[in-house]
Amino acid sequence: MQNKLSVTPYKGTRDFYPEDMEFRNWMFGKFKDVLKNYAYEEYNGPVLESLDLYAAKSGIELVTEQTYNFEDKSGRRLAIRPEMTPTVSRMIAAKANELTFPVRWFSIANFYRYERPQKGRLREHYQVNVDLFGSDSITADIEILSLIINVLNNYGATSDMFKIRINNRRFFNDVLCKVTNIPQNKHIELSKIIDRREKIDRESYIEELKELGMDDESIDRLEKMYTISLEEAIAICPNSVGATELKNLFSILYSINMSEYCEFDFSIVRGLDYYTGTVFEVYDKSTENKRALFGGGRYDNLVGLFDSNKQISGIGFGCGDVTLENFLKTHNLVPKQRNNSSKLMILNFPGVDYNKLFALATELRSILPVTLFTDEKKLGKQIDYALKNNYDYIAILGEDELKDKIVVIKNLKTREEVRVPRDNIFSYFNYPNQNETKKVK
Amino acid sequence: MQNKLSVTPYKGTRDFYPEDMEFRNWMFGKFKDVLKNYAYEEYNGPVLESLDLYAAKSGIELVTEQTYNFEDKSGRRLAIRPEMTPTVSRMIAAKANELTFPVRWFSIANFYRYERPQKGRLREHYQVNVDLFGSDSITADIEILSLIINVLNNYGATSDMFKIRINNRRFFNDVLCKVTNIPQNKHIELSKIIDRREKIDRESYIEELKELGMDDESIDRLEKMYTISLEEAIAICPNSVGATELKNLFSILYSINMSEYCEFDFSIVRGLDYYTGTVFEVYDKSTENKRALFGGGRYDNLVGLFDSNKQISGIGFGCGDVTLENFLKTHNLVPKQRNNSSKLMILNFPGVDYNKLFALATELRSILPVTLFTDEKKLGKQIDYALKNNYDYIAILGEDELKDKIVVIKNLKTREEVRVPRDNIFSYFNYPNQNETKKVK
Repeated sequence: MQNKLSVTPYKGTRDFYPEDMEFRNWMFGKFKDVLKNYAYEEYNGPVLESLDLYAAKSGIELVTEQTYNFEDKSGRRLAIRPEMTPTVSRMIAAKANELTFPVRWFSIANFYRYERPQKGRLREHYQVNVDLFGSDSITADIEILSLIINVLNNYGATSDMFKIRINNRRFFNDVLCKVTNIPQNKHIELSKIIDRREKIDRESYIEELKELGMDDESIDRLEKMYTISLEEAIAICPNSVGATELKNLFSILYSINMSEYCEFDFSIVRGLDYYTGTVFEVYDKSTENKRALFGGGRYDNLVGLFDSNKQISGIGFGCGDVTLENFLKTHNLVPKQRNNSSKLMILNFPGVDYNKLFALATELRSILPVTLFTDEKKLGKQIDYALKNNYDYIAILGEDELKDKIVVIKNLKTREEVRVPRDNIFSYFNYPNQNETKKVK
Repeated sequence: MQNKLSVTPYKGTRDFYPEDMEFRNWMFGKFKDVLKNYAYEEYNGPVLESLDLYAAKSGIELVTEQTYNFEDKSGRRLAIRPEMTPTVSRMIAAKANELTFPVRWFSIANFYRYERPQKGRLREHYQVNVDLFGSDSITADIEILSLIINVLNNYGATSDMFKIRINNRRFFNDVLCKVTNIPQNKHIELSKIIDRREKIDRESYIEELKELGMDDESIDRLEKMYTISLEEAIAICPNSVGATELKNLFSILYSINMSEYCEFDFSIVRGLDYYTGTVFEVYDKSTENKRALFGGGRYDNLVGLFDSNKQISGIGFGCGDVTLENFLKTHNLVPKQRNNSSKLMILNFPGVDYNKLFALATELRSILPVTLFTDEKKLGKQIDYALKNNYDYIAILGEDELKDKIVVIKNLKTREEVRVPRDNIFSYFNYPNQNETKKVK
């Protein structure tokens, strides 16, 4: 037994007080609206998963280093989920024979990573994950990109605030063969250095390339790739399947007027090994937020980890709550008034039967949030409480009001008081303006 | 690298496929509606907490046995939260000076307990937690009880389906002094045996009482307590503060017409040590579900664990998703049609420019969920897909329709096809009956 426990949450995690939770619900609510317009269905999975699920993809060392993991009492090695893709792939694999593909799924869930806490990098964060499984068509890629644009538009974001930077892993690999002297079996390592390029300083970047065996000429040629146009890039590997995919993708984006939001960027690789086609990251154009808002791409064989006879392609993305919140706040896209519902407090009037007050509360609760003050405090203190807790209305039902068969409703914002007939109490809320003529006090 | 990973979730946890998630969202959504009517605010906290937070209350042994716990790399002992009360008490304590009490908070979150998986007892489950902090009044207890009744009424449950069994811890302790020969320092142990009474067989129950030192006479007197009326019970300890609280509580419940839902039950103790006043559990009247649906009560000093100068009383309850779901299903309270929104699929008509189809999708998405079929499959296969995935409408925009400036909309439930002007596409959804005269095909 300790005398005093700490009130701070565990390092890198957050408490969501009502105002924080209201914000999170607003932010994810608007995201969900667009997902529903696109007919995506919500799913969720457990917070604990077998460690194997992550080790299969990234190797046991990386996984034990970066995830919270431990053994249960039966010796099963578990991890607190660091990401959703392995779980959703497992779920898809388990029902691959029952589902009619393509399926469009999303989830909003929390994830744990063992990170040094720093701005925007928490140990627990929330993420929206969106995936379209079972369609190989480039229009599936288009759907995912247009969905992202619609999500950001739905917050009021315009094309001057964000950019989707797009590449293609097949094309990327083909270009590496052409412009570098690095053998194919080292391309994954090379791609990880390129992925880090904007996160580390220039010298370390060059050094890492050289350590891998890059010669100066290759480094120069690679460098040019980061600034050339899509046409110039394609000219380097015109027969690459990835080049055709990129060309088609941008041509459709142009035809549906979404090209202004998108640009080709050879440095977009995505750190993870499982991407196979289109890859993309969404960046805030403001220099304040350097980390990608959304990241994702096409992967063709995640379900194959569970059943080697199955090959279900997918394209999807994740979007973290912290980067999204930073983006929305940087661009002033968070409305002050997010929640329209007014709330009302009924005074606990001394001497009035509780059942009379309770009946009024029950009736009013059918149209707005209502608190019936519980303690026997002075009326002034009760009103103070309502003001401090942002109530919009106070309802007064004292002995005089009972006798007159009315309720006095006070609007705490306008300070107006209205006498409303007790048996027609809703009239005040349906037609607040009509009641103004009845103003008495 | 394993060749084949298991597709089953970790023991005692569940995958929520879209149909499961839709049910969970419906169930918690209806719960939330009532919480909002009562002006309760949502909060949440981290899944990982310091193990101390739980050990302080229940002792380290019990906590390490029943929770998932481990050390992080800095040697901090952590637990995956097994319940919400310690977290919410910590959060309240951290902001005790900023909050204006009483505060009304709720959360919907998942919890982990190390349990042998069995019907209704999972290792991961979801729970609604509701608390009113900072009011000592018995009307706060009434508010919580009436909220529970309203929640169950909101699902369509009536008083013949459930019962709230109520006791008072202060009264309970006073009665134990009167009717048993057990010294006060063993009352917590005794109360835990009484709490187990309905879960273990009669012989073990008697044996446990005897082991604690109960004589036959005390056992007889205690036995009578389980069946006597509130009046008879109060007569045993008429001067107990708890007796007065119980009397007031039931008298108000009677005056607000909620007594039919409630009954005094001396065997309701709640296993946890922190309860101090009113305690209650909600039971399904059907014998199929024996476990309590809701459980809770009044606790007067949880915040004191964090700051011994503070004393913030609270009353609250928890309600698990599995028991609630069992209750709703047992009483046929789950409507088949829970989600009213129809969805539409646009055929990927061969030869039609994608931008024409995409523009139609974008327009229709402002009024209902829309999928634009992505793959180049035969139209018959596309329609099959829509039927299997429960789409309500199909929209056809082929070359003929483009020429005629119309869209053919097919209602998949009624099999009716309507030709709708392309530039007035919403007319179909706003006035489906008016369009029937235009039926052509």
